[in-house]
Amino acid sequence: MGNEAYRTAHAASLDTGDAGRAVRVAGWAERIRDQGGVVFVDLRDATGIVQVVFRPDGGEAHDIAGALKRESCIQVDGVVEARPEGMANPDLASGEVEIEASGIVVLSRAETLPFQLDGRVDVAEERRLKYRYLDLRTTRMTENLRARSTVIQAMRRVLDGSGFLEVETPTLIASTPEGARDFLVPSRLRPGNFYALPQSPQLFKQLLMIGGVERYYQVAKCYRDEDFRSDRQVEFSQLDLEGAFWGQDDVLETLEAIVTQVVKDTRGVDLDRPFPRISYAEAMERYGTDKPDIRFGMEIVDLSAVFEQSEFKAFAGVVADGGVVRAINAGARELSRAGLDALVEQAQSLGAKGLVWMVVQDDGSVRSPVAKFLAPEELAAVVAALDASPGDVLLLVGDIARVAGPVLGQLRLDLGQPLDHDELAFLFVVDFPVFEVTMEGDLVPAHHPFTAPVSVEEMRTNPAEAISKAYDMVLNGSELGSGSVRIHDSDVQAQVFEVLGISRQQAQARFGWFMEALRYGTPPHAGFAIGIDRLVSILRNEINIREVIPFPKTQTGADPLTGSPSRVEGPQLTELGIAIRPEIEAQWAGEAQSESV
Amino acid sequence: MGNEAYRTAHAASLDTGDAGRAVRVAGWAERIRDQGGVVFVDLRDATGIVQVVFRPDGGEAHDIAGALKRESCIQVDGVVEARPEGMANPDLASGEVEIEASGIVVLSRAETLPFQLDGRVDVAEERRLKYRYLDLRTTRMTENLRARSTVIQAMRRVLDGSGFLEVETPTLIASTPEGARDFLVPSRLRPGNFYALPQSPQLFKQLLMIGGVERYYQVAKCYRDEDFRSDRQVEFSQLDLEGAFWGQDDVLETLEAIVTQVVKDTRGVDLDRPFPRISYAEAMERYGTDKPDIRFGMEIVDLSAVFEQSEFKAFAGVVADGGVVRAINAGARELSRAGLDALVEQAQSLGAKGLVWMVVQDDGSVRSPVAKFLAPEELAAVVAALDASPGDVLLLVGDIARVAGPVLGQLRLDLGQPLDHDELAFLFVVDFPVFEVTMEGDLVPAHHPFTAPVSVEEMRTNPAEAISKAYDMVLNGSELGSGSVRIHDSDVQAQVFEVLGISRQQAQARFGWFMEALRYGTPPHAGFAIGIDRLVSILRNEINIREVIPFPKTQTGADPLTGSPSRVEGPQLTELGIAIRPEIEAQWAGEAQSESV
Repeated sequence: MGNEAYRTAHAASLDTGDAGRAVRVAGWAERIRDQGGVVFVDLRDATGIVQVVFRPDGGEAHDIAGALKRESCIQVDGVVEARPEGMANPDLASGEVEIEASGIVVLSRAETLPFQLDGRVDVAEERRLKYRYLDLRTTRMTENLRARSTVIQAMRRVLDGSGFLEVETPTLIASTPEGARDFLVPSRLRPGNFYALPQSPQLFKQLLMIGGVERYYQVAKCYRDEDFRSDRQVEFSQLDLEGAFWGQDDVLETLEAIVTQVVKDTRGVDLDRPFPRISYAEAMERYGTDKPDIRFGMEIVDLSAVFEQSEFKAFAGVVADGGVVRAINAGARELSRAGLDALVEQAQSLGAKGLVWMVVQDDGSVRSPVAKFLAPEELAAVVAALDASPGDVLLLVGDIARVAGPVLGQLRLDLGQPLDHDELAFLFVVDFPVFEVTMEGDLVPAHHPFTAPVSVEEMRTNPAEAISKAYDMVLNGSELGSGSVRIHDSDVQAQVFEVLGISRQQAQARFGWFMEALRYGTPPHAGFAIGIDRLVSILRNEINIREVIPFPKTQTGADPLTGSPSRVEGPQLTELGIAIRPEIEAQWAGEAQSESV
Repeated sequence: MGNEAYRTAHAASLDTGDAGRAVRVAGWAERIRDQGGVVFVDLRDATGIVQVVFRPDGGEAHDIAGALKRESCIQVDGVVEARPEGMANPDLASGEVEIEASGIVVLSRAETLPFQLDGRVDVAEERRLKYRYLDLRTTRMTENLRARSTVIQAMRRVLDGSGFLEVETPTLIASTPEGARDFLVPSRLRPGNFYALPQSPQLFKQLLMIGGVERYYQVAKCYRDEDFRSDRQVEFSQLDLEGAFWGQDDVLETLEAIVTQVVKDTRGVDLDRPFPRISYAEAMERYGTDKPDIRFGMEIVDLSAVFEQSEFKAFAGVVADGGVVRAINAGARELSRAGLDALVEQAQSLGAKGLVWMVVQDDGSVRSPVAKFLAPEELAAVVAALDASPGDVLLLVGDIARVAGPVLGQLRLDLGQPLDHDELAFLFVVDFPVFEVTMEGDLVPAHHPFTAPVSVEEMRTNPAEAISKAYDMVLNGSELGSGSVRIHDSDVQAQVFEVLGISRQQAQARFGWFMEALRYGTPPHAGFAIGIDRLVSILRNEINIREVIPFPKTQTGADPLTGSPSRVEGPQLTELGIAIRPEIEAQWAGEAQSESV
């Protein structure tokens, strides 16, 4: 071929206007079939597919085509011709034409594939990952990769056009004492010392604000060494952004602009702006979660007032003790007694002491195991408050609010959440509390310690109620990212560390250099980070984020393709000042021995 | 301030058209001076500077302004006014106006700075890095960061517009046996096992080609654990790209398009295309280096033929033994005998046995320590070959070619290379050898083992002469990046491993999974990686790449700001299955003891 081009046309670009044109195409033989001696090859390239025809009188080319293995990489010379009447394939962009082949070169033979790429048979994920380079050839993965690129491009276009500077922050950073979720990287130049990989560029982006970079963004690789859940990876990408002389509204408006462009470019849909904004308290009350899916109703209704004076002591007692009675109207659904009992068990497994169900009868009466304990006006009040009609199933939980809400919130999702993501419902949840209350009632910081509280005084005096300037972006019930206004005053920062239970010594050891940085004229600033994997997976209607990551790790952090992580040779470790611990060595020796037996 | 904006105008945007307008600006107090009771503050924001005036009758605002510390972060309300006749400052975009302040809020006080930011005093780099967030406020660093963002934006614009897909490859990858320059990352889920950080995305981008991604790019973070040189960092960024059904010309044309856009956007200059392309052999002959600076002449000339039969045995003997006599015309320069002797020493320190200098006299005769050994026609031939005029200094080296070339190449740079980078001379060096010959005459692979040779046969039979399909991009004497056509045939790959001295077992252990991937229809492909740090530093006329990296490490891999790398707590290591080696622990104990004495 020498300097000649590998191709003069792309598969999907050919149409009847090209009829009679001599072309060279190159790609993969997706399908090969022999029909009465005529060999048809579906040649696929990055643009799509074109059908190539090898006639029996085609000599060597015909023979080569006939012997092709699927997914071999080929180059074909031929002439574009309109397909015979009635033979067009409307599924292909090039479906009106085919190529009458005059020659073929096998650029690279394919061996028998470990699995078929046509999606007809389910392939185990481990196997797909081991041969990810083949899996990437499937339409599904091709489109997922393209969507991911489009999403990131759209994000950058908005930010580049808004005066943001793209700045790369370091990824070999200081490991902080107690940084249990840090990945560590031993240093060879300082044996026995370690870098850490960043969980986020948080402090560096704040340093950029101190440094006068007023608008920063970056698609940042971040790392989190935690036990895997289905939607987490050891490394992940986020769109990280921060602005000086900026407040919450500025951040949210910028996010709206970004997300609107992303959706426009991937879905062709114009989102309504502004997105709904609801407070954390309201989200918990109406949806029982801080990441509500607002594509459907079935909102949680508080019925405490109804039962305050009830003869049904289970509910009246809860309310008297400061608890609540809340409920959802799960709508008209045919549920057997067993089905209803299953919901009770589900509620209990979620932490509720129980669940009361009610079914509205055709005559407007209410069927329920507790109906007999309730006054008619109480039942009527429940039906009215839940706007219930005959056939509707009502689910009530009486408990403390932080149990009743989340339990009903989960039941609401189980019963009402759409399975696909054709509809996109973005919203912002704002006014997060400084502390989250665990199911056990403990107060734990809800955000990183650089988040500005509305009032430090309130943090001290009324920690359970104190609000911070933190906000989340939510899409279809998934948290897409979070951000906050940051503390820009070193005194406030010191006080917040203290209230969050970080001692002065700890603060100094972990963040002393940062506390000093705050002392040289730090501008007010705020920011956000959007998780790219989750956003793309929802836009692509993929349940698992691994489907939108080119080369993901499994849930145990392994890569079946390259075999990482793996053992390394001792001398290399010696240089780093580290060694494998004896108990691990012993375990390996044991394994080796049992293998050799 | 509540929800009010922090500012209504930017400093540099204000001009006489704004006269009379009430504005709020926010930024840093770069300079504060009191002139007869009137306080002038230069307020700097990301756009530039505006002068703010506080009159003595301004009450509290005047007092606050007068007491300001430099670099405090402030917000000012006032009215824009044209400056008095003759008081305009042509150096400022807003120099025709000033703000008559009515109020000031100190958003954040600055303590006394560790160094001044006006660039009048040289600050030690270590100190600048310790307070990088202040250093970033200087005009120099602001412009460097902005240029870096512009460069990356321009690269992406060209590639996004050419159908490239941006794909993120993993950064926790498999550590390869003998991967001595890999950074390792211990795995907690598999104690005693390690990931490695990538030296480049090489194999993953080749997998993307196998996977049917026909055009890939990424701004990739790469890691190299080597002893530091002034122009290397442990982590660095490269624009990584690869294309399928692509050859060398396709790559070079794409690079030209990218670089032309980058230079246009940062320098406002249109580069001529195509860039010069010269072979490695020619570069070594004419410039004595594979990264020639072609902004100036002083090319190396071969004089071997002149001295073949000479009575000057030192040169004739070298030629007879297969060596060469080469020379440069260093041009007219006043050099004392000591200056000339220094050049001889310099040549010797570079590895030459000696250096012969000649100075052309006004009468056309030649002054030289060896003139008396040379025939008049030999001297005349030297003068003619070097196109020398009276006053010119000629420098000759007789040695084997791989010594004479580089020695003269370095002298050429020392004597001729411009100090600044106002002129930009890009070129491609192509046809690299498969093996480089060290000064000691050993053959070492010149590129990674996935580089396609022109002929495997030639690699075997004539290794010293064999050429590979590898190419570099060079700017002003610096290598900006390199690339190659890759091997896309697993048999060829196996043979190349063998010729490069990688045994079948080693190849299998290190790259077995990749060799398998090549067997499923791998398209021909080629690619490149551009080092972003070096490119930006040349465009910004910075000698040191650390000046164009937001948060660089020092030459020993340390970060004076955050104190990385650092020691970590034992329990954290235990979880990872590793321990600090006893000799390091002992050393630390010794240090601690001597500190406590």
